[in-house]
Amino acid sequence: MKIIVVGAAGTIGRAVVEELGARHDIVRVGRSAGDVKADITDPASIAALYAKVDRFDAVVSAAGRVHFGPFMEMGEDEYMVGLRGKLMGQVNLVLLGRERISDGGSFTLTTGILTHDPIVRGSGASIANGAIEAFAQAAAIEMPRGLRINVVSPGVIEESMEAIGHLFRGHEPVPAARAALAYSRSIEGAQTGRIYEVI
Amino acid sequence: MKIIVVGAAGTIGRAVVEELGARHDIVRVGRSAGDVKADITDPASIAALYAKVDRFDAVVSAAGRVHFGPFMEMGEDEYMVGLRGKLMGQVNLVLLGRERISDGGSFTLTTGILTHDPIVRGSGASIANGAIEAFAQAAAIEMPRGLRINVVSPGVIEESMEAIGHLFRGHEPVPAARAALAYSRSIEGAQTGRIYEVI
Repeated sequence: MKIIVVGAAGTIGRAVVEELGARHDIVRVGRSAGDVKADITDPASIAALYAKVDRFDAVVSAAGRVHFGPFMEMGEDEYMVGLRGKLMGQVNLVLLGRERISDGGSFTLTTGILTHDPIVRGSGASIANGAIEAFAQAAAIEMPRGLRINVVSPGVIEESMEAIGHLFRGHEPVPAARAALAYSRSIEGAQTGRIYEVI
Repeated sequence: MKIIVVGAAGTIGRAVVEELGARHDIVRVGRSAGDVKADITDPASIAALYAKVDRFDAVVSAAGRVHFGPFMEMGEDEYMVGLRGKLMGQVNLVLLGRERISDGGSFTLTTGILTHDPIVRGSGASIANGAIEAFAQAAAIEMPRGLRINVVSPGVIEESMEAIGHLFRGHEPVPAARAALAYSRSIEGAQTGRIYEVI
């Protein structure tokens, strides 16, 4: 399969490339590095990405910015960072890719444990995650040509603990390589509309 | 209690007013009718609503537009109708009201069964619902002054079946009066961060 991995230079993205790269053709995508550069907050950039790659069989999104901050300091603008970045960035990867992807192809998006298990300062991530999970479940039942869509929702990633572990006290870290297995299940399996929680 | 009901003229809103009106002071809010007129898609209109009502103890939102359409015809603009209307309209009711509401006050938002139980043409509702539910669960753990926030997620409302029943074949309709009980549980109870599914 030819698999587009958006966010390939990130902690999860690198593990996904490691897991799938041995047996598939990977197109690494990032804002500032990769086989193709693209910014998923810009629909024109996504369209240019797909035009450049031409045909492909799977898309992984492990990208999307959110704003972390205390709830009482979060306003509409702070929520919109995640709604434009993590949510619509990933949704637009699906909307702009759904006509171009091969028959039977799959989209695998990324959320995280904060959907249902909130932390202090994390409401901007939760709101985006909840939308992504509901979107994927709804889109799955209307996908044509055997197309599939799933979500991987990992706990806090072990490799990120030094940077963000103080926000996730008491959470059991998940090695990125374990999270990467869920992307393999999504892409190399046959399920659709699933939320793969890796906790 | 003084309770602001946004969408008071709607099918659910009328039942909420009926349920709570006997024992509380209700401020009916709608776009074109009510004790106070307000459009929740406009933050300035929400701010004007709160300034006019002055002090209040609870806010119910039973309002918010989404776009229904086949997934393959839904683009970013169609999803944004629900993200700006049903999602950010309700979120802004919380953000702009959280400093003004009485100690121990509550916000009760509305989603629906499509969060986790999608229908064809309904992905625009699902995406907004998922975001609202995750937002409420996250905001609940950071609310100051004993403030609370819950969500009511009803199945398709019996009184709406003539208009939208064809989209919900096989769904068991919920009388609006049954859904209204969940708003009472949220406002007159003491729980927070709950999703009350009425199915």
